[in-house]
Amino acid sequence: MTHGKAPTTPRSTLVVTAHAGDFVWRAGGAIALAASRDEKVTIACLTFGERGESAKAWREGRKLAEIKAIRRDEAERAAAVLGAEVCFFDAGDYPLLATPELTDRLVEVYRATQPDVVLTHPAEDPYNGDHPAAHRMALDARVLAQAIGYPGPGEIIGAPPVFFFEPHQPEMSGFKPEVLLDITEVWDTKRQAMECLGAQQHLWDYYTDLAVRRGVQLRRNAGPNLGLAHRTKAEAYMRPYPQIAKELG
Amino acid sequence: MTHGKAPTTPRSTLVVTAHAGDFVWRAGGAIALAASRDEKVTIACLTFGERGESAKAWREGRKLAEIKAIRRDEAERAAAVLGAEVCFFDAGDYPLLATPELTDRLVEVYRATQPDVVLTHPAEDPYNGDHPAAHRMALDARVLAQAIGYPGPGEIIGAPPVFFFEPHQPEMSGFKPEVLLDITEVWDTKRQAMECLGAQQHLWDYYTDLAVRRGVQLRRNAGPNLGLAHRTKAEAYMRPYPQIAKELG
Amino acid sequence: MTHGKAPTTPRSTLVVTAHAGDFVWRAGGAIALAASRDEKVTIACLTFGERGESAKAWREGRKLAEIKAIRRDEAERAAAVLGAEVCFFDAGDYPLLATPELTDRLVEVYRATQPDVVLTHPAEDPYNGDHPAAHRMALDARVLAQAIGYPGPGEIIGAPPVFFFEPHQPEMSGFKPEVLLDITEVWDTKRQAMECLGAQQHLWDYYTDLAVRRGVQLRRNAGPNLGLAHRTKAEAYMRPYPQIAKELG
Amino acid sequence: MTHGKAPTTPRSTLVVTAHAGDFVWRAGGAIALAASRDEKVTIACLTFGERGESAKAWREGRKLAEIKAIRRDEAERAAAVLGAEVCFFDAGDYPLLATPELTDRLVEVYRATQPDVVLTHPAEDPYNGDHPAAHRMALDARVLAQAIGYPGPGEIIGAPPVFFFEPHQPEMSGFKPEVLLDITEVWDTKRQAMECLGAQQHLWDYYTDLAVRRGVQLRRNAGPNLGLAHRTKAEAYMRPYPQIAKELG
Amino acid sequence: MTHGKAPTTPRSTLVVTAHAGDFVWRAGGAIALAASRDEKVTIACLTFGERGESAKAWREGRKLAEIKAIRRDEAERAAAVLGAEVCFFDAGDYPLLATPELTDRLVEVYRATQPDVVLTHPAEDPYNGDHPAAHRMALDARVLAQAIGYPGPGEIIGAPPVFFFEPHQPEMSGFKPEVLLDITEVWDTKRQAMECLGAQQHLWDYYTDLAVRRGVQLRRNAGPNLGLAHRTKAEAYMRPYPQIAKELG
Amino acid sequence: MTHGKAPTTPRSTLVVTAHAGDFVWRAGGAIALAASRDEKVTIACLTFGERGESAKAWREGRKLAEIKAIRRDEAERAAAVLGAEVCFFDAGDYPLLATPELTDRLVEVYRATQPDVVLTHPAEDPYNGDHPAAHRMALDARVLAQAIGYPGPGEIIGAPPVFFFEPHQPEMSGFKPEVLLDITEVWDTKRQAMECLGAQQHLWDYYTDLAVRRGVQLRRNAGPNLGLAHRTKAEAYMRPYPQIAKELG
Repeated sequence: MTHGKAPTTPRSTLVVTAHAGDFVWRAGGAIALAASRDEKVTIACLTFGERGESAKAWREGRKLAEIKAIRRDEAERAAAVLGAEVCFFDAGDYPLLATPELTDRLVEVYRATQPDVVLTHPAEDPYNGDHPAAHRMALDARVLAQAIGYPGPGEIIGAPPVFFFEPHQPEMSGFKPEVLLDITEVWDTKRQAMECLGAQQHLWDYYTDLAVRRGVQLRRNAGPNLGLAHRTKAEAYMRPYPQIAKELG
Repeated sequence: MTHGKAPTTPRSTLVVTAHAGDFVWRAGGAIALAASRDEKVTIACLTFGERGESAKAWREGRKLAEIKAIRRDEAERAAAVLGAEVCFFDAGDYPLLATPELTDRLVEVYRATQPDVVLTHPAEDPYNGDHPAAHRMALDARVLAQAIGYPGPGEIIGAPPVFFFEPHQPEMSGFKPEVLLDITEVWDTKRQAMECLGAQQHLWDYYTDLAVRRGVQLRRNAGPNLGLAHRTKAEAYMRPYPQIAKELG
Repeated sequence: MTHGKAPTTPRSTLVVTAHAGDFVWRAGGAIALAASRDEKVTIACLTFGERGESAKAWREGRKLAEIKAIRRDEAERAAAVLGAEVCFFDAGDYPLLATPELTDRLVEVYRATQPDVVLTHPAEDPYNGDHPAAHRMALDARVLAQAIGYPGPGEIIGAPPVFFFEPHQPEMSGFKPEVLLDITEVWDTKRQAMECLGAQQHLWDYYTDLAVRRGVQLRRNAGPNLGLAHRTKAEAYMRPYPQIAKELG
Repeated sequence: MTHGKAPTTPRSTLVVTAHAGDFVWRAGGAIALAASRDEKVTIACLTFGERGESAKAWREGRKLAEIKAIRRDEAERAAAVLGAEVCFFDAGDYPLLATPELTDRLVEVYRATQPDVVLTHPAEDPYNGDHPAAHRMALDARVLAQAIGYPGPGEIIGAPPVFFFEPHQPEMSGFKPEVLLDITEVWDTKRQAMECLGAQQHLWDYYTDLAVRRGVQLRRNAGPNLGLAHRTKAEAYMRPYPQIAKELG
Repeated sequence: MTHGKAPTTPRSTLVVTAHAGDFVWRAGGAIALAASRDEKVTIACLTFGERGESAKAWREGRKLAEIKAIRRDEAERAAAVLGAEVCFFDAGDYPLLATPELTDRLVEVYRATQPDVVLTHPAEDPYNGDHPAAHRMALDARVLAQAIGYPGPGEIIGAPPVFFFEPHQPEMSGFKPEVLLDITEVWDTKRQAMECLGAQQHLWDYYTDLAVRRGVQLRRNAGPNLGLAHRTKAEAYMRPYPQIAKELG
Repeated sequence: MTHGKAPTTPRSTLVVTAHAGDFVWRAGGAIALAASRDEKVTIACLTFGERGESAKAWREGRKLAEIKAIRRDEAERAAAVLGAEVCFFDAGDYPLLATPELTDRLVEVYRATQPDVVLTHPAEDPYNGDHPAAHRMALDARVLAQAIGYPGPGEIIGAPPVFFFEPHQPEMSGFKPEVLLDITEVWDTKRQAMECLGAQQHLWDYYTDLAVRRGVQLRRNAGPNLGLAHRTKAEAYMRPYPQIAKELG
């Protein structure tokens, strides 16, 4: 019995998010970095954020189906810019409810994509209950997909490391940066992907400022290393499972 | 103004411990791994553990000076086996008191060794107050050594990552494994170094069992990866500052 | 697009509780204070506490419908004393289950009452699972009611501050007083409302003692201020979202 | 009105677990100790662990019904060795879902067994979502079974103390030993019960090592008491509710 | 080598407190209970509370020496009522400073009294820095007194369990009741001892109310046990080290 | 006996900081706001930050005395811009050591200024040990200054509320915004004060961005209130003691 990953397969990253925009703001740099190394990135997007993250469209008087189409289109263009494939579950947001059926569909995605890395929301968000719901299903499905006894198509997976990306209000959501990822070299790509999200234009500069601030923090924690330019951009992540290392550093 | 590390220097590891045996039980694998890569490892050992960790010798009726000589000898032999250099502060244990003078001596060691990695005790240990004292001085000295305004010989240092090694009673000391280091390939060396510590013979098997258990945990967190043999040995560490990464994994 | 609150409307307080008695014991002072300023207070009471908080009536051999009628009557009289309006959901207690339907009904109440302040249970209670269930629905509904995309009658709401009132066993429920509300001037009203709850007579003195103790704590934290009499009574609250201030004090 | 325990009844222990093997690995010593005092022990086993804890059988190509029968047989033999009675809910694992129906069945067991002590899983387990689900239902049912207003057969129960047994990865699951139970005198029985679990043979030595390690910790926390032999074995527990004591010690 | 406790010696309790009144308000019941069983109780009282806990005397215009004499007299009378011996360190309060010299004197007391149980302040108190200082020295001295290598008269001690008594503002000091001690049978003695403390008369009723409230909590956690009268009084404690048990209950 | 505050005295704010720049970056808005209401603000600045926060000057080859003079001058000009008075302790930084003598000098300042509000550093900062040292002394001195038995000139103080200002790396220092202070109307003053600090020019924009971000957070937590412009600036604070309130809001 083996699990389903051939040694020559390129690395695979699975991103599980609640709404159409989450993967861009919070993990666009990590996605673009992986894609820039010819790795495969799959985004499992549980909803379009049609009710909770599309206030501008509702204020313009648009209808539900239209809003979902707009958000899908935006997200697909952003994913294309980043070099990733996005898969929509259309599970309905605000509230997104954690169900065995959705979790089961995620198990299928895990087994189909055989991820080496998983990115998702952290456990808490007092400003948006959909994020914790996506978090729970992403983690539950990962464990179920490991079990040979859990039914369904595809091979079982290993135990890919999980990273939680940064929520909108980190201190209020128990978020503490445990990994600072240098995204300087793909920053232009991330900015371009953000600009695909016309429904949330007010966030373009907000998340640019965040990338600068996390970059400052990266330099501070890396010491006065001359190789790091002042334009360093970064994304912050938590790592809930222990890191497996061959060397400390 | 630059800090004092030439790019061609081999990597340097600094280990700050309270007692003579600590670096062997808790970080012997990490030390042997670094040495096996021809890196430099310096152990700043604040005391010989002459009062608090030498019960057997006291029960045999030995005197303080004799016990210190025994522990020094043991520690030097263990360090030699691991491939590291050990430097004794002879600051007196039980209690080891955190003082500005000791901290200043540690600053000198930081600047002289220009570490790329620092290993020390975690913040809490309800069974041994010397460990938290060593912890505080190790962290304070690291920050002071970074400041150009702090007086003393040597160049300032960067911001080397810090790792806390595992205390004797992890759950009682707030210890949670954040990094599992695979030490399988240097296990025989670590065991040989442990066997230099005749004063604490009852711990040889105890820390062998711990290495096996952390190895099981490593495999569990790495997934059913065929490349990991059942004899995997590991050491656990905490990482108090964010990891700087070029890639998630 | 505006949200639904005219500037001249009196302040509105919404209290979301699990059982018929909760608003009296835990928040009666805050309710009476608001009412004494001619503000509007609405209590959304999810159950009558007919199974879990009516042991005396069950021991007397009463039936479910009768017990619900008793508790409703008691709660309505207590609410009248305090100057508030109470709205019963009759959702069934022990266990109270968090459901999308109940949450949706709460969204309607939020939109209808346009609260300036929200009071509810804290997140934990190892002695009564209904309280955390009410807590989750109260917080989820507040977020949903803010979204223009969430369907239903009424205008969207702003982001009213939330206060958690004190559970029966505060230290076991992670409760830490963050706000001490001076209820001295409405104490007689609160006591009178408590005395409407004949089914839980053993709690009258218990909660009087609590008010005295929180009053002592208020004086201790306010300094030896001569304006505070020894008969000061207080209620304790937690504040999960940041306070918005024009001045520190 | 009295609750249903006659003063002359022998002490009763209720163990609520997710899977067939859990009571053996984690609480076998406590069960054997109670049985050795002629006390009654009932194990409410929610699932057979047929999907999530039977990888070996699945790899051998067995079918679901067959695997359930194997696990049932193993667990019944292990329970018999320990001196306990096991009752299977067959609720389906991976995922085990917390439902009002299962909780209600547990209320019946609580009322039928009138436990003096309850053992179950702790609240967190990032490696297995079934354990937290069993935990929640075990705690919820205990509170419901105390309420005279909760319908169903049997007498209401008191407030038996609860103990959480040790999860597989304690530090990752927020587990801190609060009680160390000396199981030395029943160790052979526990080992024999473990050996009934052929489906998980790789855990026999793992949990033997754990018993040794908790035994070392017990001796360390009991002081150098000559009455404790080096072969001391122990199990660790958390205690979520306050201990009621007639004497400190 | 043995440690210094003969098996026929009566049990010994050591109480380490910052100020003259602490042992009465916070542990008077535990002390009286132990004394009622003919056990030995020694109170190491580090200061008289002459500056920080004697506001009434200062307001009356008394001098330092006089106040110390008053507090000493009060404490000695209270200790006599409880059946304990009190030993004053006169280390100076407000602030009480943790020093190696004071800790060393405590080591001597530990070795002289060979305690089976230790009572002291918990780690935090944002309202009084002397309490954490006493806490640290009490815990440090306990560990030092265990080491055969630590110099000084007397035999080494074992590892007596430690209990933290309740601070004045429990929720603000991270205090969570982990043990509820039934002090009903010695309540009159505790009240009589409290009444010896004329300097703090305002606390007599405050701590009587606390004993009632902890008694209610004890009954709630012990279930509706008919053997517990409504007049039950209790004291709450934390237990920082694991309990060693022969039986769960 | 009264404490030393006449009812007609304008409100007084005391700011206790480790280094010359801290009060500007972290609390400049609160200071300017208070001053704009004709309140008195006193800054107790324990060191000039001459070693740890003046890297630029050291790199330029300046001497210690010169650097201290530069920082003093900068801080005095910034304080003047904000409308506050600054008092230097010149206690020596990197490391700033908490001593009874410094704490005693702070007690004098507390009694002389009779603060209604106290601002200082939070408890943790893994990047700078001087900040926790200043924190401890600020809190200890506040408690000592309340005691009539603590010797020294001046009247005792009440129990002024304490606010912790935001550290440089909030998530790494356990900082969670509990109060968001609207500083929009004094923003120009704060920016002008920041520009007095030529030694740390790289922080001008950093702290401007922070004020914008905290302003966004303020608006998010205040709801879509039309009265709040998009240019809202804010500072974040923690509040370690309970807020005393006459009304919830």
